[in-house]
This record gives sequence, structure tokens and C-alpha cells, in this order.
Amino acid sequence: MGTQRYGAGIWHFATYVDRYATDGYGPPRTLLEMIDLAGQVEDLSVVDINFPYPGGGGVTLEQISAALDRNGLSVIGITPEIYTRQFARGAFTNPDAGVRRLAHEMCTEAAKMVRHFGADYVKLWPGQDGWDYPFQVDHKEIWTRSVEGVAALASESPDLKFVIEYKPREPRVHMNYDSVARTLLGIERMGVPNVGILLDFGHSLYGGESPADAAQLAIDHGRLFGMDVNDNNRSWDDDLIAGSVHPVELFEFFWTLRKNSWEGVWQLDQFPFREDPATAANSAIRFLKRIERALDRLDVEELKAAQARQDAVAALDIARTALFGDA
Amino acid sequence: MGTQRYGAGIWHFATYVDRYATDGYGPPRTLLEMIDLAGQVEDLSVVDINFPYPGGGGVTLEQISAALDRNGLSVIGITPEIYTRQFARGAFTNPDAGVRRLAHEMCTEAAKMVRHFGADYVKLWPGQDGWDYPFQVDHKEIWTRSVEGVAALASESPDLKFVIEYKPREPRVHMNYDSVARTLLGIERMGVPNVGILLDFGHSLYGGESPADAAQLAIDHGRLFGMDVNDNNRSWDDDLIAGSVHPVELFEFFWTLRKNSWEGVWQLDQFPFREDPATAANSAIRFLKRIERALDRLDVEELKAAQARQDAVAALDIARTALFGDA
Amino acid sequence: MGTQRYGAGIWHFATYVDRYATDGYGPPRTLLEMIDLAGQVEDLSVVDINFPYPGGGGVTLEQISAALDRNGLSVIGITPEIYTRQFARGAFTNPDAGVRRLAHEMCTEAAKMVRHFGADYVKLWPGQDGWDYPFQVDHKEIWTRSVEGVAALASESPDLKFVIEYKPREPRVHMNYDSVARTLLGIERMGVPNVGILLDFGHSLYGGESPADAAQLAIDHGRLFGMDVNDNNRSWDDDLIAGSVHPVELFEFFWTLRKNSWEGVWQLDQFPFREDPATAANSAIRFLKRIERALDRLDVEELKAAQARQDAVAALDIARTALFGDA
Amino acid sequence: MGTQRYGAGIWHFATYVDRYATDGYGPPRTLLEMIDLAGQVEDLSVVDINFPYPGGGGVTLEQISAALDRNGLSVIGITPEIYTRQFARGAFTNPDAGVRRLAHEMCTEAAKMVRHFGADYVKLWPGQDGWDYPFQVDHKEIWTRSVEGVAALASESPDLKFVIEYKPREPRVHMNYDSVARTLLGIERMGVPNVGILLDFGHSLYGGESPADAAQLAIDHGRLFGMDVNDNNRSWDDDLIAGSVHPVELFEFFWTLRKNSWEGVWQLDQFPFREDPATAANSAIRFLKRIERALDRLDVEELKAAQARQDAVAALDIARTALFGDA
Repeated sequence: MGTQRYGAGIWHFATYVDRYATDGYGPPRTLLEMIDLAGQVEDLSVVDINFPYPGGGGVTLEQISAALDRNGLSVIGITPEIYTRQFARGAFTNPDAGVRRLAHEMCTEAAKMVRHFGADYVKLWPGQDGWDYPFQVDHKEIWTRSVEGVAALASESPDLKFVIEYKPREPRVHMNYDSVARTLLGIERMGVPNVGILLDFGHSLYGGESPADAAQLAIDHGRLFGMDVNDNNRSWDDDLIAGSVHPVELFEFFWTLRKNSWEGVWQLDQFPFREDPATAANSAIRFLKRIERALDRLDVEELKAAQARQDAVAALDIARTALFGDA
Repeated sequence: MGTQRYGAGIWHFATYVDRYATDGYGPPRTLLEMIDLAGQVEDLSVVDINFPYPGGGGVTLEQISAALDRNGLSVIGITPEIYTRQFARGAFTNPDAGVRRLAHEMCTEAAKMVRHFGADYVKLWPGQDGWDYPFQVDHKEIWTRSVEGVAALASESPDLKFVIEYKPREPRVHMNYDSVARTLLGIERMGVPNVGILLDFGHSLYGGESPADAAQLAIDHGRLFGMDVNDNNRSWDDDLIAGSVHPVELFEFFWTLRKNSWEGVWQLDQFPFREDPATAANSAIRFLKRIERALDRLDVEELKAAQARQDAVAALDIARTALFGDA
Repeated sequence: MGTQRYGAGIWHFATYVDRYATDGYGPPRTLLEMIDLAGQVEDLSVVDINFPYPGGGGVTLEQISAALDRNGLSVIGITPEIYTRQFARGAFTNPDAGVRRLAHEMCTEAAKMVRHFGADYVKLWPGQDGWDYPFQVDHKEIWTRSVEGVAALASESPDLKFVIEYKPREPRVHMNYDSVARTLLGIERMGVPNVGILLDFGHSLYGGESPADAAQLAIDHGRLFGMDVNDNNRSWDDDLIAGSVHPVELFEFFWTLRKNSWEGVWQLDQFPFREDPATAANSAIRFLKRIERALDRLDVEELKAAQARQDAVAALDIARTALFGDA
Repeated sequence: MGTQRYGAGIWHFATYVDRYATDGYGPPRTLLEMIDLAGQVEDLSVVDINFPYPGGGGVTLEQISAALDRNGLSVIGITPEIYTRQFARGAFTNPDAGVRRLAHEMCTEAAKMVRHFGADYVKLWPGQDGWDYPFQVDHKEIWTRSVEGVAALASESPDLKFVIEYKPREPRVHMNYDSVARTLLGIERMGVPNVGILLDFGHSLYGGESPADAAQLAIDHGRLFGMDVNDNNRSWDDDLIAGSVHPVELFEFFWTLRKNSWEGVWQLDQFPFREDPATAANSAIRFLKRIERALDRLDVEELKAAQARQDAVAALDIARTALFGDA
């Protein structure tokens, strides 16, 4: 291969807080510092940037462009931060119409940035849209708002793509866009061509899906607009280094992309709370390159024959030989 | 109320085997014995019957009708056993076309029984349709077969309803019809009016759904054709007595049905491995009657106002007052 | 009853941040503001206070005492914050000996505060002590440090009690003190009388334990020194309002305490991210009072007879009658 | 290496039933047929045999010995079937004293077989000892019975070893011996030298443990008497082929054994419901041999240095280089 492009969310290079380490796992970084860190990663071509810019304001578009240029990076997507304090009770589904309007406006600003950077999409991750308790919400109402809120954006910007990154939960106890199938149902209801899915491998895995199956379904609906990878222990969005826990399913996921000739960027969505971000990204990308070579080695004809028989052991053996080398 | 009808799968009154107690949790029962046990439950009106008849053959339709009559029971649905040995590698998705045809034929026979008994539906629970291992199947192919297999049945019997009971897993490590949204996606693809969902409360719960939300979604798509309840610990299909673990969510589920004027039978799908089946059914139905009365007590206006604000504490307090009595 | 005392962690009255809402779910509060909010809760007698004081420094012991007095509150425990940035890679198990010493010193300062307030214990919650990745740690070494770190504190302050609040995970992917049994094993190895367990109902539940069984085990080892309650969906530490999801198991937990004549404070450990904290606390305490009355109503003799037979349905019916009222 | 011995539970070569495929996933096999199938596996040296013999009676000790001999197999352990119908409500904890006595007698018979075959241990897997519902049992009583039942056996046969195979659940909703720490607590309370743990990799994994950490803990208590491997999706005991899902953690588990110079048999506990058992065993053993070679390649000094720093990325990179080959 050698031509595969790699990307990362710029938050991979941030520092983090959580509800316990309220002083953060490290001193805050500015967006420009994050970009410079991203530049230290071998083979990184694109980044996804939050809007409003993370790490505090005051930075100009010119400064961002300069930082990207000096690090050989371009922008794949813009992620509006529709999950901060003002959206704590939802963006598209907030009970307050004024807050819903604010979310719409922030996404519209993000759309302008996508045009400015010539990026691929506005990425919507409505992490605060959902519920926490039984009886808290009118499920019909909030699902309708979830669908219509995205549809409105897409209709207003038919020149752009919007991607929804579904996730089962966190920070809400349950998110509306919780799975590939639910998100596809919502997108079909929207009836617009420019909304698709950004499939996060870890979200799929811990939601009980097979990421390979989820990717196939999204592709068959013509809606796989992007993807990113990481890993976890299947019960939470740990955002660990890709391939650290589930290398076989990661391999199956990329095999599914290849056999469908899906040729987008392989992105990272990792949260290295306690690790050096460039080192963590390099470790992941080196493993993804192993997977690239394993895909080249994969005995595709034998695999397809085994799958036609649904012969689990034969298929597994073929996959393991490609991934781990000869037995 | 007082007019709510209750039902149960006839397997509630069977004895069970599992991979450890291979000699079974009790001596086998014939279908007629199961029906007589069902007749001992207070307030049971309908049963769902497996086909081929459980507990061994030799029983005639006349005997079944007589047993139902003497116990004041009628048939709500027929469940073809498309998950026994011959279907161990799938019914609709079996790699062997001959086995797929057998499944189709068994379901067609079940359809005849539905007509004979004047029942509501053929219930499809394709528990062996799915996969166990990474790389085992071609996901596109088996999903297509899952959808087309059901569509073919529905097209051939436009006078009948077919319901799909989705479930995340077991006995396969992953089932194709794994969630409400995936099943709705499949049904929409079929493009037929007579396929809907049989929503099992426990399957929804342990699949990470809110059963109330799942019911609302199925209703909004016009596809909630049936339901049953039980309980579990959210990680497996324990089929425990309804309301033994999640009474608040059970209450929200039935509130969702009521507010949508969904007026079907409240069915049980419990597996009392070590309990007396009639006693276990009575315990469940007594609790469901508590829920009926709690629905009558529910302060609907205040609840709707709290939900409009997405006020979790107020909504919870209203629900708990109705369910547990005054604080 | 009427004499049952209720308590809460003072963090119940804080505002929170998480990795997404990095600007927090509300403006920061000072410790004094939190205490005044705690004072608004009906029937709250005691609080557990973090050290260093949450909400920023500058507050004096005199001010804290005055705030507690005017709100009718006393201090049950002090929780040293051994999980902030400096301890991101562990407190007792940090690879850096200097950081381990800092943790020891902070706990020693907390011990002084316990003496000052006449509180019951130093509460140790080593949330950063554990690991994230396969191969990251030498398991023997970090467990030894976990045990010895607490033993050293307990030996130096034999006049005080130390309680360990175990939890499966978060913020680390895996915590060393992850379960009741592991913690008891560690405590037995310490060989000191003044270390016990603070059992958090939610941690037990989502760790796959039965909280009632965990409480019984800790009591039988003479180590149940404290407890708090909340609720969750069994896969994460959601810290929801007590009794919102698992009222039956909450009831069984308190029944276990009562039958063992365990008479400590019933504490809350809730995180009302999006709710008013006093309202959320009142909702919980009102439900706990329901449970108090249900305990009074419980037919103890019949329950014990059912349990002697391990008769699940009879025992459940007895418990439900006490908790939900007559069927 | 080349000298590592491999083993398997003889049930690996059985056919299975479950609660749906009540006619079984294949025709029943006799014990002798299972042994002959085991003999087809390359590199299998030992088997663990159920007692009473699986697949029906009538077989003699002489026939078993002859079958083992012709297949080059010996017996590592005997597993009394204390989980069939008569023990549906528990073996050591059954409410009926007569049934508890039956369990004791069956284990005593198994002990005689261990002596006859010169095997290593009686394996106790009390899968029916636990509970299903809240309020069902007196937790103090059943735990006491769990501990005393095993202690009695061990005291009566001080010449033998007894191993407890813990597991979180199934077939009971919760098993008493549910985790490594709980089991060690119980063993310590027994106060006998000849009871240890049989650590099942999959049970540990799906119980939320790190199997490497669990092994280290059991070793440090001098109680790791046996082990077996398989794989699962971390939420159920799927008994899949070893290394099919979690190869990295499997590698860490075996690294833990090697660094502690634990030199027992590497056993399989797989349930190939739909696969050919010899093929499934060969696939697993071939992967275990990959792990053997990866252990030889592992840069132990660098790994220990990384672990001393708790440097997750460095440790992971070292492990991945050994397991997957150079990046």
C-alpha cells in the first residue's frame, strides 16, 4: 500500500479532565500546540478540529492554517462542541428552544469552517442528547428533534456533508444516536443525501455490535462517510490505543472496508489520558500498518470460500495466519 | 382496567435443559400437560404455541383444542422452532440452501396453524441466525438472507401477520435481528405491511435499549405487533419473573403503551428453571396488575409537564409515587 | 424508626466537569456553598468532606465549622483527594516513590482533620491506582503497594479508622481495589484492626456483585465500616438517585444491614450532573424512608422460612408486598 | 519450548444441548468416542473427565484406560457432575441436606477415580450453587455451606488436591464462587493446604478481571493448581477458541505464568457447538504454540523496565512486537 492516509481528532493531542482529576491530566494546551504535537506523528495527514477552538480563543484562522502547513496537515472535518455546559441538557433535543437554536448556529459556524478549510464534513456528535433516568423524557419527541435538527442543517448546506458519530452513552446515560441501525433509521427519515455516519470502532464494539457488520450495513445504505479507530474493554468508551485489545476484530473491520473498496482516511480517536499523545498515535499507526500488510497477505479466495460455508475455524485460521504470521 | 388480557408462551410451562443440566431441570412435559398447567394461572387468556409441538409428537389438533377449551385459553401466536439441531447454523441464513428451504417450509406450516387457530401471528425468533466468531460470515450476505427470508414468507401469506422477536444474542454469540432499530431497518427494506416486531422487554433491556424508547420507536413505525415481559440483570436473557429487578422501567414501558393507546395482550416470556411455573406466572401477573393500578394513579398531566422540561427528578418522583404509594 | 441518620458526600453538592463538558455542568461552588446546599436537604445529619477542600482554598476550619453548625451537620469522614493530577498514575502504587510519599502525606493530613472534627474515618478511594492496558504493570508489585500503602497509614494512626471504598474501574480502566472480596483479602493481609470497607451500593452492583451479599461478607469479616447508596445501569458508576433503577436490590441491601443490626449512617453518593442537588438528595431520602417503612412491614418470619427453602418466588412476593403494598 | 504439555476437558469432544436446541447440536457421543476424538488432536497429552461418565453408563474403567492408552492420553483431573438435575438448586448449598450429602458422595467417588488414574486433582465446579433472585437466599448461610462443603472433602482426602473453578454465573444467575478473590477468601477460611484454584481464562475475563492479575494473585497465595483457556466477548462464557478475540491478554496471561515459573499443563475449555471438535482444538493449540514462541521472543528486560515505569505504550509495543512480529 503505502498510500493509505492517516488522520486523528485534534483532541488526541489535548490534555483531559474528568470528574475526579478536575485539575486535568496535564496543563491545558492551545490548538496551535496540539497541531504541532500532531505534526510529530509519523504519517499523519489530516486532523479533525473542534469548534469553538479547543484550548481557548484568540487564535486566528491564519495562525491555524500556518500551523497546519508547517506540520504538513490538512483538515478532514470540523466538530462543533455541542456538548459543553450550555448544551448539558441536549443540543438538538434541549427542552429550551433557545438552546436548540444556539446548537444550530454553532453547527452553521462549523459548516463555514468546513468550507474555509475545504474539509470533508461537519461532524456531529450529540453526546448530551439523550436521557439519564426512566421517565425523564418523551421518547417520541426527543427522537423527532434529533432527526429534524440534523435534517435542518443538512438542508441548509446541501453543498456539504454532515456525519453523525453514534455512541451508546456518555456523557448521558443513554444517547439518542446510539447505534448504527438507529442512526441509519434516522438518516432515512431525514430524506437528504448529505448526511452519513462516522463509524467509531470503539463505539460500535462497546455497543455490542460487530464493527465489521456495522461498517457493512452503513456501506450498503450508502452512508459510511468516515471512520475512526481506538479500543476498549467492550463496556465503556475507553479510547485506548487501536489494536491493544481487539486486534482480530480490528482486522476484520479493515477487511470489510477493503473488500467494499472504501478508501477514506483511517483516523484515530484515542484519549491518551496518561500517555504522550504522539507516542500513543505512533504506536497505533504502526499497528494499522501491520494490518495493511496483513490485508495484503490475506488469502481472500480461501476466506471467501470459508465464509460461504460459514466455517468459523477455517476463516479464523486464515485471518490469524495473515495477522500473526505462519503458525 | 380489569379488561387487560394476559398471555404467556407455552414454554413457560415446559421443563428445560441447558448445557450443564443435560438431563433437564425436570421430567419432560407434553404440550397437553403444559396447557393444563397454563390453565392453573389466574387471569391467563392466551398462549403462544411452538411448532412442531413441544414435548413430543402424537398430539392432534383436536386434543390441543380440547385442552385449550377446558382451560379457557386461546392461541395468540405460533412459534416455529427454527432453532433446533437442523437449524444450528441458521434458518434463513443457513449456508445450506436446503436447510433454508426447510425453515421456510416449517414457517409455512406454522402459518397454517395460525389460520387454524385464528391466532394473531406467526412469531419468528431466528435465534440461530447470526455468527459466533470474527471473520465467520459475509455480513452483507447473511443480512440480505435474513431480510429476504422473512419477506418471502410475508409475501406468500398476505392474510397473516409475521412478527420478529429480536434479541442481541443466544444461542449465537450475535444474532442478526439484534435490536429494535436493526429490525425496523430490515422490515422497511422488505416493503411489506404484514411484518412487525414482537418486543421482548428483557431482550431490549439487556441489549442496552430503554424498552420504553424501543416500544415508542416501533409504534411510530407502525410495527409494534406484540410484546412480552420478564426481567434480567441487563447482561443476559435471564427470563426472570417480571418486575423482580427493573420495576421502574417496566412501569415506564407500560406507560408508553398506554399513552399510545396500544391495547394488545400483556404476555409473559419467563423461564422458571427451578420454580413452579404457575406460581411464577401468578407472581408476575399480580405485579402487572399492580402496574395497571399504578398507571391509573399516575399523574399524567404533571408527568407530561416534567417530561417537557426533561426534569428527571420530578418525573421520577411522580412515577415512584404512583408505583410505590405516597412517600 | 425515625431515628435513622442520613448523610452525603459533600461532592453531592458540587458542580462537575467531565471530559466533554470541560467548562463544567455549572459554575464552581466553594465548600461553604456546598455545605449550605447540604443544609437545605431534609433529614441530612452528616457529610463526608474532601481534602484538600473542594472548590478552592482560602477557607478556614473555623468557617467550615460555622457552616456545619448553622446547617445542623457534622462530619462523618474525610476523603483525601488522592486522584487528582499529581496522582494520575496512582497514589499508593505510583511508579514514582516521591508521589507515593505525597499521597501518604495527604492522607496523614486528612487523618488530622478526622481527629479535629471527631469524624468516624479517613476514606480512601484510590481511583487512580490500577492500570489501563494489558502488560502495563507488574501485578504483584502494584497489589503489594496497594496493601502496604494503606497498612502503613493504619499503623501510624491506630486511634483512627480507615475505610477503603472499592470500585471496579474509573478513572483507571481497572482499579486494584475492585471488589469486596479483593479488598477483604488485602485487609486480611494488612493484619491491622482499623481498616475496613466503605461499601458503595452502585460500585457493588456494577461490579457484578449482589450488594446484599457483599454487605454480608464484609459484616462477617467484621469490616463493614460504612456505606453509601446511589443507582446505575449495572455497567458504569452512574451515581444516579438511589432507588431509581434497582429498588428491590436496594431493599435487600438494607434488609441485610438490619438483620445484622448494622446501625450506621445511610449515606448518599450521587452525582446530580444536571439536577438540583438538594432536590435530588430529597428524592433519594424520601425513597430511603419508604424502604425504612417497608423493612418494618416485612414479614421476617415468612421471609426466613422462604429463604431456608431458597424459594425464590415466595421470598420475592414477600419482599414486593412490603415494598409496593398489597397486590 | 517443545516440552509444553497440552490438555483439554473431555467435554470439548462432546455434543451439546441448550435451552433452544433441545435435541442437541449433534448426536450424543459416548465417553470412548470422545476420547478417540481427543486422540485426533495434535499435541494433546491429558484430559479432564467428567464423573459420572458423560454419554451414558455401561463403560468400564478398563475400557477407558484402553481408550486413553491407544490415544496417548492420561488423566489430569476428574470433574464430578454436581450440576445436573438433582443438583439444580445447589450441590454444597442445596437447601435439602440429603442432596448436599449426595454431592459429597459423588465428589468422594470422583476422588477415588483420581487415585485410580493417578490424576492431579478433583475439579469442583459448583455451577448450581448460588442464586437467581434478590431475596432468594440467606447469603451468610450459603457462603458458609460453600466453604464448609469443600473443606469437608479436602479434610477427608488429604492425599489429594481439590481445585475450585470459579465463574461469575451460569447456569445460576450468580455463583457463590464467582471470582479469584472470593475463592481465595473461601480457601483461606478452610484452612487446608490441598484446595486451590483452577483458573479459567474466560471466566476471569468475563468476570471483569484481568486474567494475568488473577493468575498472579492465585500464585502469590500459593493456590494456582490448574488453568484452562478459551475466549469470549467479555459478557458471557462463550467458550470460544483460545486467542480468537483476546490474543493480547492471553499472551499476558501466559507471560505471567512463565515469569512465575508456573509449569503446569495448558488446557482447553472450549465448547465447539457448531464446529468439529478436533479442528477447533488444533486451531487453539496452534495459536498457543505461537504464544510459546512469542514468549521466547519477548524482550523481558525491556518489558520489566517499562512496567517499572508503568509505561503502557512501551510495554504494549514490546508485547506486540513479540506477538505480531516486527512492525
